[in-house]
Amino acid sequence: MSDIEARLRAIGAERYHANHPFHGLLHGGKLNRGQVQAWALNRYYYQSRIPLKDAALIARTPDSDIRRLWRQRLDDHDGVAPGDGGIARWLKLTDGLGLDRAYVLSEAGILPATKFAVDAYVAFVRERPLLEAIASSLTEMFSPGIISNRVSGMLAGYDFVTAETLSYFNARLSQAPRDADWALAYVKQHAVTAELQDAVANALIFKCNVLWAQLDALHHAYVAPGMIPPGAFVPAP
Amino acid sequence: MSDIEARLRAIGAERYHANHPFHGLLHGGKLNRGQVQAWALNRYYYQSRIPLKDAALIARTPDSDIRRLWRQRLDDHDGVAPGDGGIARWLKLTDGLGLDRAYVLSEAGILPATKFAVDAYVAFVRERPLLEAIASSLTEMFSPGIISNRVSGMLAGYDFVTAETLSYFNARLSQAPRDADWALAYVKQHAVTAELQDAVANALIFKCNVLWAQLDALHHAYVAPGMIPPGAFVPAP
Repeated sequence: MSDIEARLRAIGAERYHANHPFHGLLHGGKLNRGQVQAWALNRYYYQSRIPLKDAALIARTPDSDIRRLWRQRLDDHDGVAPGDGGIARWLKLTDGLGLDRAYVLSEAGILPATKFAVDAYVAFVRERPLLEAIASSLTEMFSPGIISNRVSGMLAGYDFVTAETLSYFNARLSQAPRDADWALAYVKQHAVTAELQDAVANALIFKCNVLWAQLDALHHAYVAPGMIPPGAFVPAP
Repeated sequence: MSDIEARLRAIGAERYHANHPFHGLLHGGKLNRGQVQAWALNRYYYQSRIPLKDAALIARTPDSDIRRLWRQRLDDHDGVAPGDGGIARWLKLTDGLGLDRAYVLSEAGILPATKFAVDAYVAFVRERPLLEAIASSLTEMFSPGIISNRVSGMLAGYDFVTAETLSYFNARLSQAPRDADWALAYVKQHAVTAELQDAVANALIFKCNVLWAQLDALHHAYVAPGMIPPGAFVPAP
């Protein structure tokens, strides 16, 4: 393993949101339906902005090979027809949890902190050097583990969750490693100075912060101390 | 009072961060030194980005009168000489609280959620229509009240705070109403349709969310449940 790969894996081991207490609760069946709804609602905003992030990356490279390859991510998230793709599958999850689809799509109840964090990610990919933009996607190196835990834990822990509503994650189990393998190889090939390796490491730390901050906001609003900001989603009693 | 002014004041009454529990604790002398340090450190990031926000607004209007008037804010925050201005006064506060100045300036320990919220504010002013950008400054309509409470409460509640270290707020007591009066008059003159009035109201709500989210993040990390994210400032025991 190259030094930079070891360094990136160490960042993931410390900072990836698999370590966040909210995920322990979510995957351990410790949340109530309203709390799981709040998670799915807020995560919808993240899902909805992923194609904007990917298109921003495509829009800034003159390399046709990278553009063609990265375009697969647009297919994955937006689908090849209406009702297909990751966003549509996420909406099946919010449907299955009993959230009104028009309310979800309106984005009205989403925590401002979720929007700030996700928008920061899109801006990072649009504005930072291409190598850093690609490196910020490398949290996908760590996602198969958390997805397996999530699916098994949520199916076991919640009678209001079904394999059908969790179909989003099945697709990601093959998509994420494919994407991460390419991005990691690109980073290892191009981060050839200490300065570039620092930049790559900081891009991954930034992305871990984006994910962590979303769970902090959910935890604060809906778990402990349970302070829901003005205007945000309030679960039914 | 015009309808739009009443509507804006109602938004402030409900959503301005004077209502946030963290401010109740801060102004009531209920925090320890490390918690006050965390507040001042994170708020430094907000202060440091205000001139970027103001310059972004100046950079987008062809109206020389507005540019000249808004330029006063750059003077206020960056000063007319090194060591002068709002940012320098804020650093006197972080100095007075015992924070290492190089650490503050490095921005290393600042909560990611603080950065995401503040950066969202700068982006809003850079990207949204001018009327909304100006309207997003209108939280200053509500700031004299909170500043008075803060100064008297902190002087009474904390033996590690002095009038000298709080000098930032004295200047703001005259600057904020002057700025808010002009911005409110501008908004009342230009928000002449229901659609524009909605946009103005939403801009103020957005800005209230920016302020509120910063206190949520502080509260979550340093008060309850006290979950400090990886890499963020850890107060000395």
